[in-house]
Amino acid sequence: MAEDNVIYIGKKPTMNYVLAVVTQFSMDEGKHAAVVIKARGMSMNQAIDVAEIVKSRFVTDTEYDDIKIGTENLQNKEGKNKNVSFIEITLKKK
Amino acid sequence: MAEDNVIYIGKKPTMNYVLAVVTQFSMDEGKHAAVVIKARGMSMNQAIDVAEIVKSRFVTDTEYDDIKIGTENLQNKEGKNKNVSFIEITLKKK
Repeated sequence: MAEDNVIYIGKKPTMNYVLAVVTQFSMDEGKHAAVVIKARGMSMNQAIDVAEIVKSRFVTDTEYDDIKIGTENLQNKEGKNKNVSFIEITLKKK
Repeated sequence: MAEDNVIYIGKKPTMNYVLAVVTQFSMDEGKHAAVVIKARGMSMNQAIDVAEIVKSRFVTDTEYDDIKIGTENLQNKEGKNKNVSFIEITLKKK
């Protein structure tokens, strides 16, 4: 899957990401018709909220193709390694 | 699946729930050998952390059988309805 199909959840309000996912779906019409929502650590809650809002209110002809969770090893500001959980939610057109 | 196989994530430290899941697996030996980790709203992050820690460090012969996300309609203290996302992670012995 192309990288431009991925929406990374950061520190913006939930509705910003909902809009980003909806826009991605409308641009992809007839191409891949799938969007991956990715988040790490404290943003994982929000990734789930974004996916649920898109699916129930905006692009209702979608379903979850895959939900993956795992652990990534990251370096923090002090150069120390830290394990951080991540989630990847693949939402696709039915 | 029996209800006693479900661990609900609340406001305790992550390691309390890790221990609860590990204990559940050790009690279930030979019975169902699967534990469901459930969480709502802000606790969903922690549910993912708990699952990842159990799987990578404590009960390493497990895999994700199912990861489900969805929305529940709850009543808050003021009696208003509110949509809250949830996650259900099923971890089972390989």
